[in-house]
Amino acid sequence: MSATSGCWAPTPKARKQLRYRAAEPDLDAYYGDIEQAHLQPLWEMSGLLTPTPVVKAVPYRWSADNLQKLAARAGELVPIDRGGDRRVLAMSNPGLGGAPFISGTLWAAVQFLQAAEVAPAHRHTPGALRFVLDGDGVYTLLDGDPVAMSRGDLILTPSWVYHEHHNPSSAPMMWLDVLDLPMVAALDAVFFEEGPSEEADQSVSPRSAAERRFGQGPGLVPTGVSAAVHDRPHSPLTVYRWAETDATLNSLLEFGDGQQAELRYRDPTRDRDVMPTLRCEMRRVVGGHTTATDQQTGTRVCAVLDGTGTVQLGGQELSLAPGDVFVVPSWCEHQLEATSTLDIFTTSDAPVLEALGLFRRKVA
Amino acid sequence: MSATSGCWAPTPKARKQLRYRAAEPDLDAYYGDIEQAHLQPLWEMSGLLTPTPVVKAVPYRWSADNLQKLAARAGELVPIDRGGDRRVLAMSNPGLGGAPFISGTLWAAVQFLQAAEVAPAHRHTPGALRFVLDGDGVYTLLDGDPVAMSRGDLILTPSWVYHEHHNPSSAPMMWLDVLDLPMVAALDAVFFEEGPSEEADQSVSPRSAAERRFGQGPGLVPTGVSAAVHDRPHSPLTVYRWAETDATLNSLLEFGDGQQAELRYRDPTRDRDVMPTLRCEMRRVVGGHTTATDQQTGTRVCAVLDGTGTVQLGGQELSLAPGDVFVVPSWCEHQLEATSTLDIFTTSDAPVLEALGLFRRKVA
Amino acid sequence: MSATSGCWAPTPKARKQLRYRAAEPDLDAYYGDIEQAHLQPLWEMSGLLTPTPVVKAVPYRWSADNLQKLAARAGELVPIDRGGDRRVLAMSNPGLGGAPFISGTLWAAVQFLQAAEVAPAHRHTPGALRFVLDGDGVYTLLDGDPVAMSRGDLILTPSWVYHEHHNPSSAPMMWLDVLDLPMVAALDAVFFEEGPSEEADQSVSPRSAAERRFGQGPGLVPTGVSAAVHDRPHSPLTVYRWAETDATLNSLLEFGDGQQAELRYRDPTRDRDVMPTLRCEMRRVVGGHTTATDQQTGTRVCAVLDGTGTVQLGGQELSLAPGDVFVVPSWCEHQLEATSTLDIFTTSDAPVLEALGLFRRKVA
Amino acid sequence: MSATSGCWAPTPKARKQLRYRAAEPDLDAYYGDIEQAHLQPLWEMSGLLTPTPVVKAVPYRWSADNLQKLAARAGELVPIDRGGDRRVLAMSNPGLGGAPFISGTLWAAVQFLQAAEVAPAHRHTPGALRFVLDGDGVYTLLDGDPVAMSRGDLILTPSWVYHEHHNPSSAPMMWLDVLDLPMVAALDAVFFEEGPSEEADQSVSPRSAAERRFGQGPGLVPTGVSAAVHDRPHSPLTVYRWAETDATLNSLLEFGDGQQAELRYRDPTRDRDVMPTLRCEMRRVVGGHTTATDQQTGTRVCAVLDGTGTVQLGGQELSLAPGDVFVVPSWCEHQLEATSTLDIFTTSDAPVLEALGLFRRKVA
Repeated sequence: MSATSGCWAPTPKARKQLRYRAAEPDLDAYYGDIEQAHLQPLWEMSGLLTPTPVVKAVPYRWSADNLQKLAARAGELVPIDRGGDRRVLAMSNPGLGGAPFISGTLWAAVQFLQAAEVAPAHRHTPGALRFVLDGDGVYTLLDGDPVAMSRGDLILTPSWVYHEHHNPSSAPMMWLDVLDLPMVAALDAVFFEEGPSEEADQSVSPRSAAERRFGQGPGLVPTGVSAAVHDRPHSPLTVYRWAETDATLNSLLEFGDGQQAELRYRDPTRDRDVMPTLRCEMRRVVGGHTTATDQQTGTRVCAVLDGTGTVQLGGQELSLAPGDVFVVPSWCEHQLEATSTLDIFTTSDAPVLEALGLFRRKVA
Repeated sequence: MSATSGCWAPTPKARKQLRYRAAEPDLDAYYGDIEQAHLQPLWEMSGLLTPTPVVKAVPYRWSADNLQKLAARAGELVPIDRGGDRRVLAMSNPGLGGAPFISGTLWAAVQFLQAAEVAPAHRHTPGALRFVLDGDGVYTLLDGDPVAMSRGDLILTPSWVYHEHHNPSSAPMMWLDVLDLPMVAALDAVFFEEGPSEEADQSVSPRSAAERRFGQGPGLVPTGVSAAVHDRPHSPLTVYRWAETDATLNSLLEFGDGQQAELRYRDPTRDRDVMPTLRCEMRRVVGGHTTATDQQTGTRVCAVLDGTGTVQLGGQELSLAPGDVFVVPSWCEHQLEATSTLDIFTTSDAPVLEALGLFRRKVA
Repeated sequence: MSATSGCWAPTPKARKQLRYRAAEPDLDAYYGDIEQAHLQPLWEMSGLLTPTPVVKAVPYRWSADNLQKLAARAGELVPIDRGGDRRVLAMSNPGLGGAPFISGTLWAAVQFLQAAEVAPAHRHTPGALRFVLDGDGVYTLLDGDPVAMSRGDLILTPSWVYHEHHNPSSAPMMWLDVLDLPMVAALDAVFFEEGPSEEADQSVSPRSAAERRFGQGPGLVPTGVSAAVHDRPHSPLTVYRWAETDATLNSLLEFGDGQQAELRYRDPTRDRDVMPTLRCEMRRVVGGHTTATDQQTGTRVCAVLDGTGTVQLGGQELSLAPGDVFVVPSWCEHQLEATSTLDIFTTSDAPVLEALGLFRRKVA
Repeated sequence: MSATSGCWAPTPKARKQLRYRAAEPDLDAYYGDIEQAHLQPLWEMSGLLTPTPVVKAVPYRWSADNLQKLAARAGELVPIDRGGDRRVLAMSNPGLGGAPFISGTLWAAVQFLQAAEVAPAHRHTPGALRFVLDGDGVYTLLDGDPVAMSRGDLILTPSWVYHEHHNPSSAPMMWLDVLDLPMVAALDAVFFEEGPSEEADQSVSPRSAAERRFGQGPGLVPTGVSAAVHDRPHSPLTVYRWAETDATLNSLLEFGDGQQAELRYRDPTRDRDVMPTLRCEMRRVVGGHTTATDQQTGTRVCAVLDGTGTVQLGGQELSLAPGDVFVVPSWCEHQLEATSTLDIFTTSDAPVLEALGLFRRKVA
């Protein structure tokens, strides 16, 4: 961990390179005066307004093998306790000079919970999601609603919802965490609260309360939903099960060219993404197929649930295997080639770019 | 200008302060291995999730006197040409270590144009606004629509709209620029294009095309507005004149307690702010009145159009005079006391915080 | 007044014309049995589903001369008192068999108030508007807010808002009323309440409270508007003044072909019409110009504020003079020819057709 | 079938009852003159603005027994051919004087298709739905997408979607049709087109294309939905299967008092009803339970899928058995008592009343 930021700032010119300085003593005095007044001359800056985004984050892939081994070693070496809160390894983008972020806007990490461990309750304004690349046995309490976690499931922990993780099983479990933390921090809007002391482990139904109310059938919504629930800025359905995701991808495959299908996880009661800051999608690319090259503004974090292949990222080729995680920086060219059928989960900050009128997408 | 960023990053502990390190050689080796794998241990970080926002930007006021004198000196010392684009002095928040930003999300500056000068056309994804604290004589071309600028006017230059500034008058003119540039840069979404070569100065109508179509009377909207215009993410009315703002404040004063009034500049055809990233407001506080203390998430940039008084900012008291500009960092306590009647223009990133479910406001 | 309805019903065939009847005693018995069971055979109906709308209302013009003379005679002959409520002459479309409606969905009428008379307060779910074709002197109280009425003004009395009319002047005044009454009645949703006893006449400001809050300048909206006001289904601005309408039309004329201009009255705080059931528009056609022929679903009620010319309505030509009112039935061809410059106010049920996915418009 | 309308019109007073007539010859002449001018005096009308809705439609129940027997007899007596289009028995509300409508706004009917019959393709602006009270074997083509129909399924045929019905099975089938026809007709917005000649019967998948794209899992929506599909004013999911409805009701029962549950059928991609004119709901009331009394504006058409009990409708008690259909007129008190567990499908014009600001609901 080094001290540099993952965020954006213009590259100032060194003093000696100042354009108008030369041997002008007036200008020199002037530059001193404005510095004193906390003002800076635009005409001496560069890199502020660039034809296309100049992105510090670089394309990178974290291999499943590394993630699993290193998380397991943390499980042995580092206790989880109230002080430490979570046993989490943050993916640090090599382009960000040591900041613990996968890009300038997103946090991605693996979290590891030993058998019989509990990660205690808290809530925070940054929104989070969990995607399970393998295993099961853990459940998450979301404002008191227990959600069992299994391979392929997407679990939301939206902004300001209390959450805690319990592993009543006899085996450790690991999953992928993605948060909008760098963005919320850059907006100076981080709030945090400890939750009530953790509850004893309980028997957990395979279906959460959220699923029973909002996840039974598409378009079937309970009447009498309170304004308190209806007006929240995120989906009332907080878990999307792999069985349904898988079946939907198969259904959609039939309607395209049979080579690929893609779905978006949505608020089932509204025309919006699951959370205001994070879009979630799952893509299936049939073995032997190569996708079109695309570019879009904003960061994409991708996780391989199943299959093998390669991804081209801005001219760099990376091999993919189940459990791998990779990042597609803003406006970076991106193309997938499936050796065996790839199932890739993607989350992105696209809803933010759309809300601010900044979303662009180009498909070759 | 120093090299540090204005943006957020956690404060990493120095190696020797690592919590679990002590004399544990296994852990030491482990930390080496994860660093190699571009992973970082959450349990060794601090400052990530704080009870309330920890904001680097500090409250600060730039005095009118300084802004005017230093801008005028730039006018003498620094030529404006195609290479240099704009003669702009950026307000650099003292808390941001030298970054040329007024806060982590906003850019504020004064721009100075000599008589007969032209700042040539370009467009960029960061959105901008101009607020005229004094003077007149300049006009701005917005996608070809000439907008005359006078004291108290608010002029929008929304994302991706071509703009250029012309000063056909015989006197220099200065105004306040505010942009969402740091935010758009942090989102890795900066695009930029030079415009067509500048047009010869022309006679400019006191009312722009935008005003003639969308600014005649409240609620009176032309039929047959094209989808291209209707679907843009910003207000079709790109200038709000002081005469109407002033009259509206007087009208509103009668409906409150007679002590203060506040209006919001809005898209006159929609239920939204003028731009997706910037809220604009004007507040009048009658001499002798002290406002309630408030706090809100996000940055506010305030400019005194008229009147004198003081502002309390997180315990710090600053005097205010016409032409002063000050910044209210996120969640900072803010209270105004008017000696003579204050007219204060405020712009903020509140629409972003609202869109992302992160807006909080507390009034004591 | 005859007893027939203005509303739609299929034209049943007479018994003897039944298609399958012939000499089939079984069918005859069957028809008796289903009638007994309150069932009717679709196969014996005609006119249910027609290629284009079959509209009972016919094009018609009420001349200013008639309206004024007959309203004035009512003023002499018929007292206004609590029992009688309003001195109103309803325009009865000749195609509707005597129903007091200008079309199947809209009510239009002239209302006449003698000097010193008061039409007492009440409210009802049908929404109404007043358009002043001539004169001034009356004010309307809208939930207690006094609104002075003058030539060319549009005044809203939205659903469930208390309203009463006062004429403190020394001359009688007449205006046009349009209501969505037939539609609300057909939806079985008419509610009505008497208001508090009328207030003594008062001195009325030329600008109502609604105008002071929401009508000063386009896009200038007070902060701190209560949810009670914000959430109402209609515009918070309840009067649109002729001076601004006139100036806006002149502005818009410059941007078209100089031959015609049209504006829509809108909620100045939202992307919607002034009321959920009624669209309001004002059109200016320069003398010598003939408009394109158009057709649209739903009823249009048009009033000539100024100018002369002719209107073609489904092949019928009608001359137009100031103060005339005419109706354009659904899907009827409509074309204007201005002899001298025509200013025509139009209100329609278009927002209803749009909300229900039934709006169609065709311009030749 | 008698010739009177089902729609609303005020009850005019007979000439001899006119309030002001008496022996006033001036007034008599005046009434003649205004009649000539197609004007009517408001002060002589009654019943226009009533404290609460005065509704012509009355509460009524059509028994399953009657519906089934009479539909089957139609199947024997009346051929279906291109001329006749559909073999449909419309429920005629006894309060509407013979109009073939279940209320002033809605059409309800049973449709009967013999084995091997086809009802050919057409489309119309009135929107329709089918609810299957019993049986299966028929499929409906919706813009070419074949939808198999089974007991408990809800099938939409939204405005302007081509539809045709095929019965390739060896048994007849009957179902409930509900349309917004009277409302669309009253708005003078009926358009109709014959479809392409019917297709040969085909093997039909148990899941339609619409279900495969939009009906797999809640919140799982395909990316790349075309604007043409996204912008339609109705749900892209055109069938809701009983298995999922039933499971959802069971899930919801657990979250209430265990006595009753209610769901609304919704567009799974938006915050809206399935069609802009028709709301659809399914309610389960456990045997032994009595619901609260409610009133709401607009018409409700209810069909008993299963169970027995009674319904109180404005003081009238009606017994309920599977297959019964009943109508709840606007603002009529409504209360259910379940003898055995009742499953009741309800459709209403509530979205229209909501869109127009006219929806009211009162629960005792």
